[in-house]
Amino acid sequence: MTTVRSTLPDDARKVACEALQDTLVELLGLSLVGKQAHWNVVGPRFRSIHLQLDEVVTATRDFADTVAERSAALGVPPDGRPETIAKAFTLPAPAEGWVRDSDAVQVMVEALQEAVGRLRERIDATEKADPVTQDLLIAITAELEKQRWMFDAENFPR
Amino acid sequence: MTTVRSTLPDDARKVACEALQDTLVELLGLSLVGKQAHWNVVGPRFRSIHLQLDEVVTATRDFADTVAERSAALGVPPDGRPETIAKAFTLPAPAEGWVRDSDAVQVMVEALQEAVGRLRERIDATEKADPVTQDLLIAITAELEKQRWMFDAENFPR
Amino acid sequence: MTTVRSTLPDDARKVACEALQDTLVELLGLSLVGKQAHWNVVGPRFRSIHLQLDEVVTATRDFADTVAERSAALGVPPDGRPETIAKAFTLPAPAEGWVRDSDAVQVMVEALQEAVGRLRERIDATEKADPVTQDLLIAITAELEKQRWMFDAENFPR
Amino acid sequence: MTTVRSTLPDDARKVACEALQDTLVELLGLSLVGKQAHWNVVGPRFRSIHLQLDEVVTATRDFADTVAERSAALGVPPDGRPETIAKAFTLPAPAEGWVRDSDAVQVMVEALQEAVGRLRERIDATEKADPVTQDLLIAITAELEKQRWMFDAENFPR
Amino acid sequence: MTTVRSTLPDDARKVACEALQDTLVELLGLSLVGKQAHWNVVGPRFRSIHLQLDEVVTATRDFADTVAERSAALGVPPDGRPETIAKAFTLPAPAEGWVRDSDAVQVMVEALQEAVGRLRERIDATEKADPVTQDLLIAITAELEKQRWMFDAENFPR
Amino acid sequence: MTTVRSTLPDDARKVACEALQDTLVELLGLSLVGKQAHWNVVGPRFRSIHLQLDEVVTATRDFADTVAERSAALGVPPDGRPETIAKAFTLPAPAEGWVRDSDAVQVMVEALQEAVGRLRERIDATEKADPVTQDLLIAITAELEKQRWMFDAENFPR
Amino acid sequence: MTTVRSTLPDDARKVACEALQDTLVELLGLSLVGKQAHWNVVGPRFRSIHLQLDEVVTATRDFADTVAERSAALGVPPDGRPETIAKAFTLPAPAEGWVRDSDAVQVMVEALQEAVGRLRERIDATEKADPVTQDLLIAITAELEKQRWMFDAENFPR
Amino acid sequence: MTTVRSTLPDDARKVACEALQDTLVELLGLSLVGKQAHWNVVGPRFRSIHLQLDEVVTATRDFADTVAERSAALGVPPDGRPETIAKAFTLPAPAEGWVRDSDAVQVMVEALQEAVGRLRERIDATEKADPVTQDLLIAITAELEKQRWMFDAENFPR
Amino acid sequence: MTTVRSTLPDDARKVACEALQDTLVELLGLSLVGKQAHWNVVGPRFRSIHLQLDEVVTATRDFADTVAERSAALGVPPDGRPETIAKAFTLPAPAEGWVRDSDAVQVMVEALQEAVGRLRERIDATEKADPVTQDLLIAITAELEKQRWMFDAENFPR
Amino acid sequence: MTTVRSTLPDDARKVACEALQDTLVELLGLSLVGKQAHWNVVGPRFRSIHLQLDEVVTATRDFADTVAERSAALGVPPDGRPETIAKAFTLPAPAEGWVRDSDAVQVMVEALQEAVGRLRERIDATEKADPVTQDLLIAITAELEKQRWMFDAENFPR
Amino acid sequence: MTTVRSTLPDDARKVACEALQDTLVELLGLSLVGKQAHWNVVGPRFRSIHLQLDEVVTATRDFADTVAERSAALGVPPDGRPETIAKAFTLPAPAEGWVRDSDAVQVMVEALQEAVGRLRERIDATEKADPVTQDLLIAITAELEKQRWMFDAENFPR
Amino acid sequence: MTTVRSTLPDDARKVACEALQDTLVELLGLSLVGKQAHWNVVGPRFRSIHLQLDEVVTATRDFADTVAERSAALGVPPDGRPETIAKAFTLPAPAEGWVRDSDAVQVMVEALQEAVGRLRERIDATEKADPVTQDLLIAITAELEKQRWMFDAENFPR
Repeated sequence: MTTVRSTLPDDARKVACEALQDTLVELLGLSLVGKQAHWNVVGPRFRSIHLQLDEVVTATRDFADTVAERSAALGVPPDGRPETIAKAFTLPAPAEGWVRDSDAVQVMVEALQEAVGRLRERIDATEKADPVTQDLLIAITAELEKQRWMFDAENFPR
Repeated sequence: MTTVRSTLPDDARKVACEALQDTLVELLGLSLVGKQAHWNVVGPRFRSIHLQLDEVVTATRDFADTVAERSAALGVPPDGRPETIAKAFTLPAPAEGWVRDSDAVQVMVEALQEAVGRLRERIDATEKADPVTQDLLIAITAELEKQRWMFDAENFPR
Repeated sequence: MTTVRSTLPDDARKVACEALQDTLVELLGLSLVGKQAHWNVVGPRFRSIHLQLDEVVTATRDFADTVAERSAALGVPPDGRPETIAKAFTLPAPAEGWVRDSDAVQVMVEALQEAVGRLRERIDATEKADPVTQDLLIAITAELEKQRWMFDAENFPR
Repeated sequence: MTTVRSTLPDDARKVACEALQDTLVELLGLSLVGKQAHWNVVGPRFRSIHLQLDEVVTATRDFADTVAERSAALGVPPDGRPETIAKAFTLPAPAEGWVRDSDAVQVMVEALQEAVGRLRERIDATEKADPVTQDLLIAITAELEKQRWMFDAENFPR
Repeated sequence: MTTVRSTLPDDARKVACEALQDTLVELLGLSLVGKQAHWNVVGPRFRSIHLQLDEVVTATRDFADTVAERSAALGVPPDGRPETIAKAFTLPAPAEGWVRDSDAVQVMVEALQEAVGRLRERIDATEKADPVTQDLLIAITAELEKQRWMFDAENFPR
Repeated sequence: MTTVRSTLPDDARKVACEALQDTLVELLGLSLVGKQAHWNVVGPRFRSIHLQLDEVVTATRDFADTVAERSAALGVPPDGRPETIAKAFTLPAPAEGWVRDSDAVQVMVEALQEAVGRLRERIDATEKADPVTQDLLIAITAELEKQRWMFDAENFPR
Repeated sequence: MTTVRSTLPDDARKVACEALQDTLVELLGLSLVGKQAHWNVVGPRFRSIHLQLDEVVTATRDFADTVAERSAALGVPPDGRPETIAKAFTLPAPAEGWVRDSDAVQVMVEALQEAVGRLRERIDATEKADPVTQDLLIAITAELEKQRWMFDAENFPR
Repeated sequence: MTTVRSTLPDDARKVACEALQDTLVELLGLSLVGKQAHWNVVGPRFRSIHLQLDEVVTATRDFADTVAERSAALGVPPDGRPETIAKAFTLPAPAEGWVRDSDAVQVMVEALQEAVGRLRERIDATEKADPVTQDLLIAITAELEKQRWMFDAENFPR
Repeated sequence: MTTVRSTLPDDARKVACEALQDTLVELLGLSLVGKQAHWNVVGPRFRSIHLQLDEVVTATRDFADTVAERSAALGVPPDGRPETIAKAFTLPAPAEGWVRDSDAVQVMVEALQEAVGRLRERIDATEKADPVTQDLLIAITAELEKQRWMFDAENFPR
Repeated sequence: MTTVRSTLPDDARKVACEALQDTLVELLGLSLVGKQAHWNVVGPRFRSIHLQLDEVVTATRDFADTVAERSAALGVPPDGRPETIAKAFTLPAPAEGWVRDSDAVQVMVEALQEAVGRLRERIDATEKADPVTQDLLIAITAELEKQRWMFDAENFPR
Repeated sequence: MTTVRSTLPDDARKVACEALQDTLVELLGLSLVGKQAHWNVVGPRFRSIHLQLDEVVTATRDFADTVAERSAALGVPPDGRPETIAKAFTLPAPAEGWVRDSDAVQVMVEALQEAVGRLRERIDATEKADPVTQDLLIAITAELEKQRWMFDAENFPR
Repeated sequence: MTTVRSTLPDDARKVACEALQDTLVELLGLSLVGKQAHWNVVGPRFRSIHLQLDEVVTATRDFADTVAERSAALGVPPDGRPETIAKAFTLPAPAEGWVRDSDAVQVMVEALQEAVGRLRERIDATEKADPVTQDLLIAITAELEKQRWMFDAENFPR
């Protein structure tokens, strides 16, 4: 018995939903490691970085919700369980314990740089399969590139 | 005497504005039949479905306004008069009188499924003619697919 | 099997719900032709009339909802489907295409004048049958008379 | 020594204030039994009914305040003490303990149906005595009839 | 040349608009003398009475606007010019200069008592002529009777 | 068949839920007699006392809701029906009819003083049984002691 | 027995409070004739002028309140009674009955031009007597000059 | 070099921060599996459960933030990284893929029941070590017990 | 090494910043003794005076912030430390312990009267030195004179 | 030393950032000349055009910010200095001094028409280079085309 | 003559109110020295520290109000007069004049660390005497420990 | 033909409007270079400076609007066109390209210091000519001096 039907043919749905599932893991992962850094950051720039990281958390949580619901809307159940994130999340992240402010900035620049690179590949991959999904990935990229720039500007001079 | 001039060449304008006019009729039609079901639904899920249908009405009314103003902006007067909707609206819709909650859910799944299919064709058709119009149709599709999923999930097991 | 029971005896319910159904069609029709004029108006008073028409749309949509739910509350399913409006809506309305601002004002004065006349007959008709319905029709009349006056004042000198 | 003087002659005040006192008891009683059901409802429709009952509580509390202050304004002290409600409140109400969701719906339909019937008699009774009080009773009836319909629609098929 | 046309026949319009014009003068007058007392009150209850008087001012200003626009909507230009108020306003009012708090309360009780009496006559007078105008006068009476009670309760023991 | 299961062992649940049920009756009773005094108070301090009493009503209504839902959460259905309140509510309360402002203040001081005394006993009684319930009773006591002080300060010199 | 004492010596207080009383009459007068024009304006610019006049009413009402309370704060009771305004208000104002939109604009330009001229004299007069009062008159002038300009710009070409 | 100093002696800090770390993992885990169920739920109660689950997500996210910051405030860096949650989170949770509405309700009842049991042990454990931490755990327990009850009430009859 | 440079020459800065420092002490002092009276007032006007005093506190706190930041902006560090206020604050203030409502009113009249007198001297003193500082002192005087009047009006008959 | 790194290869970045820089100049220029017309417009449509121009200013300011930050995010510093705008801004604009309302409308139609034409070229140019930048340009075009239509509709008959 | 009666026996009241009075002095003192540092801080972290200090001021002002009103509620008049604070406030505080940002951070860490230590003693002292007061002290400690951590994290490496 | 008439004699208008035009150019210029720095700032204080600069932009944009409309109100058309700003704006400003955070702070201190110096001259110049314009220039100076101080405090040690 089918559960939620799709509005896409099978091939297109497969391409779109794989892009969405991979993006979901990265957004949820970023929201968790963003909070981790938000709590553990120390150093003279504590307050600025503490607040900036919460903006990353808010943005990634909101996009994760949209991404997961889009996958469901296309008929494929999204997977955001803790074990799935732990296994599939491979972006740079802060280590355990207190994090120096400059290190927090550096790791966010790297994580967001890498995330944007992967998103751009998925933007290409979904162009034919589903322009609606592609449009969502473009919006996420715009936001993560903006966040990346702000950490990078903060990171000067390296 | 010209009235409102267009920023598009004639061919492109024709393609874009036909897509917009057809979408306008469907959005206005959905807003009317959504309200019809909102008022007439009965059954143990009355309150949930009653509220959910109003979200469809709000979304379709807002998009109808944007679609019609976009057509005007391209120099073609939109047509949302009662007789036009009655003639051109061909999506599935509830019959007269009280509607059982499960029937309301079923008819919304079908109407939105069909609407999304037609929108996807228009997304293709407008890609070259007017990417600005295409972007609006993509946004409408994203919303209607989300609404469709929520009714479909509610419709389980069929 | 009865669906929604009434709190009124059969005769009173018939009088009240006919008045409500006729009013519903007029309010939905006015909301549609109000939007039609809102989109298609042209001329030096474009902005004023464009905004004023949206106030008519908001008022008629809100009252339509109240009127339809009152009919349901009295045990009679309201009918606001596109084909019903197209068939039963007989108030003056703008023609297809762009509408000169002075014409839009003129047609709204006439449509609202006619609507108020019909509402006043229904206020009389429902006085004995259902003072609760009558009170709602009085409130609608007050609002439509106010809108009518503002278009009429705008329409001077004719 | 008079306390608060009336703007009505004695006969009219007596009619109006008896109608208001009886209505006050019913509104306060409904707000209490609505909360009782709100807390004790169980069953698969728990959340919907739990929320819907709170709308009844809010509406009846607000109207009770208006009704009591109107009685005071007419020079007769309103009585909403616990013992008065306990003695005078005779509408159907849920029994002690957990309440099955379908039973909560059923008892609200019956209580509101009965309350509306009594209000309609008071609308007739106050027409000559005090049209201002009558107008308030009409507004209460409109709201309670709307609430009654929504529970009745939820109650289908009985 | 007619200016703003009426939706009422001449006789009914005359009755309704005279009631509205007389009410307009009283509401504007009350808003002015309410402010006068608000500024000039002295005594141990200064703050309470100062604030309470501003509620009268807000209520009478809002109703004055509605009353005047209703007259315009019925085709009769309302008259709220200073000289008209000065000539036609005959309710009790505070004298020039500082006003003792108990005197301010007393004069508001008297002014509102008298205003309510006149409004009740106009409610009778407009019943046949225009139920829409009557409904507005009923709403104003309800508010002024509430304000009157609160000053009267404050005025105890006299 | 169990309905709502408890997270507490039987003994602890019995202690906690008796404390909650007794508190519920007192909060609902206070909200009713607070409104009774709010409507019937007369005297030169009318406005101050009228407003202050409404703060008691708001606080006791909100806490009553929390207390009742906590009892349900612990698996015991709360009882807030009119007849239960009438029987079990034993705090001082205003008599029928108009209430002099100084009497309203005096009765609120006494009712809140007594309520606080009982709550302090329940804070002791629930310390071992359920610290979560105890924490809620502490919060209620803090609020009622604050309200009691404000009426007592108003009551000076006695 | 003194009522409200002044923080100014007698001479200064006399100068300041005469300036304030004269300004009070003009602000209250402008708020009344602004409303008069707001209700009675007719013509193709009805909506624009109708809304613009209400901004004058809001500004003059707010400043009138500040001016009157400042006079009271300086120990002189302000006088804003209907008869005082009728006698002392001498700015240009619309005649009775409907007002053509261009006439409403013209009369507002003249009334505000004249009001500003008088305020500038009072700014000079109060400079030594009370810089606090002068500062308030400066703020009023700034606002009325802004309103005057907007009507004057609307009035082009004369 | 110490990073963030503690306001607690070492023993107390150890007890408090272990309780906080364990609670953090459960709150983050619940927020993730709550979202998982929010996205994947299907069945006739879809909308109710979908919305209710989001309330759990909001509550657990907010408390997770407070818990983690309290640990940092006591000088121990909190750990909320994906791998930590995946390893340490042991509450019942929905399986991969679509989840029937009744199953979602059932698994939330079980997860919250278990979470509350563990929290109650930590409330005991922290009583001596740190009453401030204990107070936070009490607040979390109150909220989770409320959420548990609402799912349990929805789960009737099992 | 200079810290914050000034935009004023030395003489002018000295005059302006002495006026600001003296005003700062009085505003902070008034905010503290205003709260002291807010907490300790007793008597039949408790609620009115309790609320009115909080308006003084809010106003003096906000102006103190503006005054201190203006001093910093002019290059002179403001001093609002507890010992500075205790030493330099010489306005009338309530004694320790409960304060009768009439005494609280009386002491506020005196304190504000004295404060206004000093401010008027500083308005003169700063006219040449710094019109920007003078403008701020004028605004503070306007507010404190308004507060003084309201307590004085409340204080009648003395 | 690199400052802000790019997420795009050099060629793509060059294309995207030139499109963004050219768009930035046009948006900033439009916001300045929109304000210029907003302040200097005269004529019977003053108020409508004055308000409409401010909507253009708000939209172009907001988009300018997004466009500049996007350029920074791609690693190229945006240039919005006065001299840059003065040199590079070449859209039609109002001349110095007062502007007749019809001329303001005409110049806005021309400026927006030209701006849209250039944006459409950049939409084509960035399609391959950077779909994220293209998506932003599409959104800007949609808004400017809407603004253009509203001025064009206002401009009828030319 | 007693003024405000207590709900606590004499011994318990003495313990609770001494704890409250000592806490009041520290909260008021912290709010004053927090503002002092807010105004006088200089250095590259000016903006961050300036804003963070205002959060301390807001928190301590709000808690001071609650603490003082709780003392009054227990029948003991709180003392927050300038001379009392100056005498009794002994926490570390910034010296007169400009304060380097790192020094402001350091002094806040020390002041809050010391304040928390004293609060923890009072939490123990009031456990038996008054759990309601204890609960308030726990809430204050939680907030001050959070503020202390944020300054301490900012203070790294020391 | 005159366009907008003035309320000032020719000489005074000339003085006032030259001061306003010069101020307008500086405020618009500051809003543009403030945004330029907002976008291009880099360095460890990026976020603080980025946000602080936007406050300068908001303040200068709002004051520019008030200044320009005041000039129009005095009958002289303001000139804020790009070429006018480019020619007349002579305050220090950041160079093209990325700007180090410390350089951004330094340039804002200098630009605001210079702007304040010029405004103080205009405050003197307009005192006789137009105290209303002078009052506006005083308000602008107060704000710019505050902004200058905050950048200067941030700039320590230089």
